[in-house]
Amino acid sequence: MADLQAALSECADEVERMMDLLLPQPEGPEARLYEAMRHSSFAGGKRLRPFLVMQSSRLFGVDTRCAARVAAAVEFVHTYSLIHDDLPAMDDADMRRGRPSCHAKFDEATAILAGDALQALAFEVVSMPETHSDPAVRAELVRELAQAAGGRGMCGGQMIDLLAESTEMDIGAITRLQRLKTGEMFAFSAIAGAVLGKGSYRSYMALHNYAQEFGLAFQIVDDLLDAQGDSEWIGKPTGRDAEAGKATFVSILGAERARAQAGLLVEQAIRALDVFDEKADLLREAARYVVARTK
Amino acid sequence: MADLQAALSECADEVERMMDLLLPQPEGPEARLYEAMRHSSFAGGKRLRPFLVMQSSRLFGVDTRCAARVAAAVEFVHTYSLIHDDLPAMDDADMRRGRPSCHAKFDEATAILAGDALQALAFEVVSMPETHSDPAVRAELVRELAQAAGGRGMCGGQMIDLLAESTEMDIGAITRLQRLKTGEMFAFSAIAGAVLGKGSYRSYMALHNYAQEFGLAFQIVDDLLDAQGDSEWIGKPTGRDAEAGKATFVSILGAERARAQAGLLVEQAIRALDVFDEKADLLREAARYVVARTK
Repeated sequence: MADLQAALSECADEVERMMDLLLPQPEGPEARLYEAMRHSSFAGGKRLRPFLVMQSSRLFGVDTRCAARVAAAVEFVHTYSLIHDDLPAMDDADMRRGRPSCHAKFDEATAILAGDALQALAFEVVSMPETHSDPAVRAELVRELAQAAGGRGMCGGQMIDLLAESTEMDIGAITRLQRLKTGEMFAFSAIAGAVLGKGSYRSYMALHNYAQEFGLAFQIVDDLLDAQGDSEWIGKPTGRDAEAGKATFVSILGAERARAQAGLLVEQAIRALDVFDEKADLLREAARYVVARTK
Repeated sequence: MADLQAALSECADEVERMMDLLLPQPEGPEARLYEAMRHSSFAGGKRLRPFLVMQSSRLFGVDTRCAARVAAAVEFVHTYSLIHDDLPAMDDADMRRGRPSCHAKFDEATAILAGDALQALAFEVVSMPETHSDPAVRAELVRELAQAAGGRGMCGGQMIDLLAESTEMDIGAITRLQRLKTGEMFAFSAIAGAVLGKGSYRSYMALHNYAQEFGLAFQIVDDLLDAQGDSEWIGKPTGRDAEAGKATFVSILGAERARAQAGLLVEQAIRALDVFDEKADLLREAARYVVARTK
């Protein structure tokens, strides 16, 4: 676990340096927009998706700077989704990771625009020649990222999530919700290395499956922490799902079975990596770590 | 003008057919999201940006279906910007082109997500092999579109626009605002044909300059219509800028000089097209039409 923590923290530093390079400097009459983009981009967080990009890239010997650009783009998309998610019309959260959320610090209009601009920036970064010398790789990454983030991916999952408060959801429906809402972006992050490094279809699918199981386990643990957690420790309000009468893995399965299910998913995630040698050990460890985490 | 009207209407039909093909069908638990995306995508409008894409593509003999895909993508970005612009935290407009705006018809959260998903869809469409056989062209179009739509383009312009209510703006500042807010997406639409058809740098710049002047003239006429117009005729509330105490071309220059300025910009736009033969006549006519329009 010490190795994993060191690798996570090293990766976070590297990707944050790249994000800083890619984000506009707060200058000019629109400086407020850039400040808002930066406020939310540098609000901490585990940088788990960038870690998946960097680690999967390592499997294929991808240049670290190229991988860091894609990792930054993934985090821009993730950050934009958090900004919009926190808006009063959505989750109405004034705090995020112990700091004021974007609209709380700035205002709603600025937060909406900051999210929009971060999404555009992600696609700009991926499409630039600096990301890969082969334009076919860049175009493919753009397509995969757009699909993962769009209406048939993350945004679709968020729509179902919004409706979950007023809809009867069974375990199948919740699984589908989470596969879209979290799983698609996890999957993009994990396959990014295979696309950048022109890996085989087999390795691409292995990483895809790993990330989908991993993402689901991650979400179950999130639900567990929301149901049981201490809001000061997590840095955001907890118990919100139950309050909203929203079905979650925990409300349907109960905490114990939900935890067992997360453990099972992690086993499946790790098994998906059997096609790789010990170079994938940090990916394996990362999956184990999510079910053990307490925040 | 009869030619132009026929061409505009034919182009609108063609691009709307393509948009219909590309938008997800309202199925599954997230159907509400797709309905919201469709509601705003098919809310009428002149489809001026798609027209620029189609006409500039014609100059370089680009396949019509390829051009229509890029035109649809441009309109998805434009539609998303209108959805987010209409939100209570932004312009707070319940009506758009005589119909309920997205958040009025659905709800705010759905409108935010529909905008987000439309932006992602635009990049997905441009990056797909169907848009151009050469991935370098697709990657280049993604980059140009992302720059035009992002924080240094449209979103940056919208940020300045938001601040305009509480800031002293001179004519230079307003010109910069509008070049970002409207001009960048106009410019992308016009250069799209040159990128798709691998035109010369000279023709690329000619189209870029044409669109920047055209976009500015278009915006001045918009301001004039807002200041003078009849809200039923325009299909959205008018006089809002003056109410908000916002500086516009009209409030600074006065109606007469603003109209003269728009005329001048159109002349410059048309002059930029001197490098093209009569194939560019519809682009020339379109520029003349914007200053003559009454809605």
